[in-house]
Amino acid sequence: MSAAAGARTVRTGDKRDRILRAAVKVFARKGFYASRVNEIASAAGVADGTIYLYFKSKDEILTSLFEDRITRLLGLLREECARGEGAPDRVRRLVEFQLGLLEGERDLAEVITVNLRQSSRLLKQYANRRFTEYLDLMASVIAEGQRTGELRDDVSPRIVARALFGGLDGIAMTWALGNGESGGLRRAASQFADVLLDGLRVPVKTG
Amino acid sequence: MSAAAGARTVRTGDKRDRILRAAVKVFARKGFYASRVNEIASAAGVADGTIYLYFKSKDEILTSLFEDRITRLLGLLREECARGEGAPDRVRRLVEFQLGLLEGERDLAEVITVNLRQSSRLLKQYANRRFTEYLDLMASVIAEGQRTGELRDDVSPRIVARALFGGLDGIAMTWALGNGESGGLRRAASQFADVLLDGLRVPVKTG
Repeated sequence: MSAAAGARTVRTGDKRDRILRAAVKVFARKGFYASRVNEIASAAGVADGTIYLYFKSKDEILTSLFEDRITRLLGLLREECARGEGAPDRVRRLVEFQLGLLEGERDLAEVITVNLRQSSRLLKQYANRRFTEYLDLMASVIAEGQRTGELRDDVSPRIVARALFGGLDGIAMTWALGNGESGGLRRAASQFADVLLDGLRVPVKTG
Repeated sequence: MSAAAGARTVRTGDKRDRILRAAVKVFARKGFYASRVNEIASAAGVADGTIYLYFKSKDEILTSLFEDRITRLLGLLREECARGEGAPDRVRRLVEFQLGLLEGERDLAEVITVNLRQSSRLLKQYANRRFTEYLDLMASVIAEGQRTGELRDDVSPRIVARALFGGLDGIAMTWALGNGESGGLRRAASQFADVLLDGLRVPVKTG
């Protein structure tokens, strides 16, 4: 009842989006495999059958959730990058913006860092394409900084992008599985960006 | 047949270990949830019932696998750290040793980076304790370097440890899900260590 009442306050009235947001809560609480479609329906305040008007299966709810959230994330990250001036500023924005998005969204953080990996098949066959797009965006910022001489060029932009993704993922996962303390992510983001950017600086010639 | 024949060449003859090693292969190929206990038995070359002499359930195979591998990993990492001289050398050893272990062990890399997260419940209730021990080890190396003045002390050792774990995890996961190219992990490890260590250096005062 309260979930349905909460959902009714959403102005868009978009049932598909309501179902996806309910799925985030249910997946985070029970895990992907233990979650049942009727629990998602109940949390979204819709009839069980309604789910099947939008999604073929629970698998499709998870892939749609991923597709939806990562498409939105990619759009926001591109805007955030465009606001930056120079590669170091863009890298810092990428780090702080992503961890900032998750602050206050502990359920979503858990779904992205834990539940999404619950289906190796999905991850391999489907998510890989979008995930590559995400890594490409981060690698392109690093590569740009190497071309302009702002960042060291003796490391592979793709390896840095993977480590950058991993660092964000590791920080978000331990935060989501831990106490999810308020302010924790912001502090971590800033320190992670400090270490990463100092590590990516062009080495100063001494002697 | 060939899996059984392969298993027979193992000198220890330890059925428990044979089952765990077979589980790594099966989990990597099919994912944790889609894997069945009789498939693990078949890959290990033991009768289905034999599995239950060692493990109560498929869940227990996964937790035992994790317990087993992380206990061994923690032991090896402590030895590796003891061999290092000073914190920067220890950090580099931690990075290169862990990614080095996975080179040639693509299935294990996939189980650790993907399958282990397939049960949020396991991860939260059980693995968390061991995982904390692992993060503590990495954080203690950073904290030690801060005390000796070898590493910058304006960042939290725990946040660096999480980012370090995440970076390793991100590099290993993309490698395992990608083509698992030979030599790829070694190169990534060395570049990741370079960036991380430069990022952890005490900032040089410029004037």
